[in-house]
Amino acid sequence: MSHGRLYGIGVGPGDPELLTLKALRILQAVPVVAYQSAVDRESVARSIVAPYLVGHQTEVSFHFPRADDPQAAQPLYAEAIAPVAEHLSAGRDVAVLCEGDPLFYGSFMYLYTRLSDRFATEVVPGVSSPMACASALGIPLSYRNDIFSVLSAALPEDVLATQLLNADAVAIIKLRRHFAKVRSVLHQLSLIPRAQYIERATMRDQQIMPIDQVDSSNVPYFSMILVPSKAHL
Amino acid sequence: MSHGRLYGIGVGPGDPELLTLKALRILQAVPVVAYQSAVDRESVARSIVAPYLVGHQTEVSFHFPRADDPQAAQPLYAEAIAPVAEHLSAGRDVAVLCEGDPLFYGSFMYLYTRLSDRFATEVVPGVSSPMACASALGIPLSYRNDIFSVLSAALPEDVLATQLLNADAVAIIKLRRHFAKVRSVLHQLSLIPRAQYIERATMRDQQIMPIDQVDSSNVPYFSMILVPSKAHL
Repeated sequence: MSHGRLYGIGVGPGDPELLTLKALRILQAVPVVAYQSAVDRESVARSIVAPYLVGHQTEVSFHFPRADDPQAAQPLYAEAIAPVAEHLSAGRDVAVLCEGDPLFYGSFMYLYTRLSDRFATEVVPGVSSPMACASALGIPLSYRNDIFSVLSAALPEDVLATQLLNADAVAIIKLRRHFAKVRSVLHQLSLIPRAQYIERATMRDQQIMPIDQVDSSNVPYFSMILVPSKAHL
Repeated sequence: MSHGRLYGIGVGPGDPELLTLKALRILQAVPVVAYQSAVDRESVARSIVAPYLVGHQTEVSFHFPRADDPQAAQPLYAEAIAPVAEHLSAGRDVAVLCEGDPLFYGSFMYLYTRLSDRFATEVVPGVSSPMACASALGIPLSYRNDIFSVLSAALPEDVLATQLLNADAVAIIKLRRHFAKVRSVLHQLSLIPRAQYIERATMRDQQIMPIDQVDSSNVPYFSMILVPSKAHL
């Protein structure tokens, strides 16, 4: 019996209409749809594609435990994806839904690095959040020979400052509990007038607000600060 | 009479199936479709959406002259987009087609900065080339707290070297006549084993080849080098 095919499907930033035609075609053709989901929460990726699900597909949810030590978490990751591997071994194609793009800061890498040597794998790129946030904010992000960097808000304060000065345009991701630190760095560098905050870009409850009005105790996972290029062309 | 609406439509990296559902809907609804095109060449953005054009739309092509001095080119840019502004003033919606994403290193910025204060403007983000190249190459690009940077190959050699050492993962764009310089920097930094070259990602004539086998005198505009993260998770 031949194995099933593994698809990593980028479902984009939140608006179901930002799915690609290719993602939609594969999503509706496979017998098994898989996504990451905490036990007590709805999967965001699944909610994005909910309007398109055809109703007779097997759904598999898996959960990667929070791992401050990735090495120690290896056996847990392998266990988490076992149900996906079982469907593939049984000859069923599996589409793994990924918010944004699968290979850009996504958890699909945990499946990709473990399964792509055993099973034929195809990745469908998706609209990524820095681009979606720039569109939603209406700001050209980077031009010509600009250096554009993506920075995790979890980086230490001095690293964030150095990197913000190093690049012409920046997207700061993973803000959540690091928001106050990031805001403080932006103030120190006098970047507040240029920086823009957005949460849940392209989702129905999208919010744009001045950085100094953000409640730092209540910053969602789907939030970002963009520092666009200074160039005016 | 009310003005038309300006749409910046990201049509993705090349595969027509990587258009989003939203891009397709707007593309097929507007009376005017516009795109950048040199006089003697087919527009790549138009060729990407060719399968979807409905046949009774007005098409407008415009050309931004090569500008080593952007300031001096201002009047030329204004002249280039005049036909688009005319349609908008006459009340007709215009969809401007943009390869990849409109606000990420795209020429749509030249229209956006000149027209969005006069005409209602909406930008539809698209699948951008770094993500498309990572999918086509099958390499996870960036993880967790990685610093990811986009670098233009037009940057000076020493800047490229500094920036390559600064980031965990890098996409090098605009290679063309700068390819030999970039390859030399990658050799100096011993990054050749990690770096991957791809041209025309997701297009029918996509090519992947070892960097040392690339003919540096014949590198197309749609080419990229990715230096993915070292992390193995």
